[in-house]
Amino acid sequence: MKFMDVHHGMTGITADQLKQAHDADLAIQDEERVTFETAWADPDSGLVYCLSEAPDADAVQRIHQRAGHPADEIHPVPLTV
Amino acid sequence: MKFMDVHHGMTGITADQLKQAHDADLAIQDEERVTFETAWADPDSGLVYCLSEAPDADAVQRIHQRAGHPADEIHPVPLTV
Repeated sequence: MKFMDVHHGMTGITADQLKQAHDADLAIQDEERVTFETAWADPDSGLVYCLSEAPDADAVQRIHQRAGHPADEIHPVPLTV
Repeated sequence: MKFMDVHHGMTGITADQLKQAHDADLAIQDEERVTFETAWADPDSGLVYCLSEAPDADAVQRIHQRAGHPADEIHPVPLTV
């Protein structure tokens, strides 16, 4: 199942910080059978969107929490076009 | 510039409806120099996320409005990883 998760409050995030956060997820994602695919960030609004493939939303959150950046919202997105 | 836009209230959207909505955008997107790349939908929460490449957020909204599904949020996402 694919998931879109959303982080709020990341105002001012830089490209380096986004990459570091994503790398921290990638380093441990296999332990929960999660694959983070892409992350998009808007430094002005502080929103970050992450697309992943995962067994369930809890697995996504466990990786994000252990990496130090829990998500504010996690939505399954079963439909893609 | 890439944009992530969000539609609320699309509860119960089907794969066919998502494709029809996306195709309606694609049919006219060139008139605003917008390229819609991917859309993801969660029929349970009614959330739809669309990723696009566009000159600005207003161009994204004009296409979505003309296609009959104005976005509730449009955020530039200058950072991708």
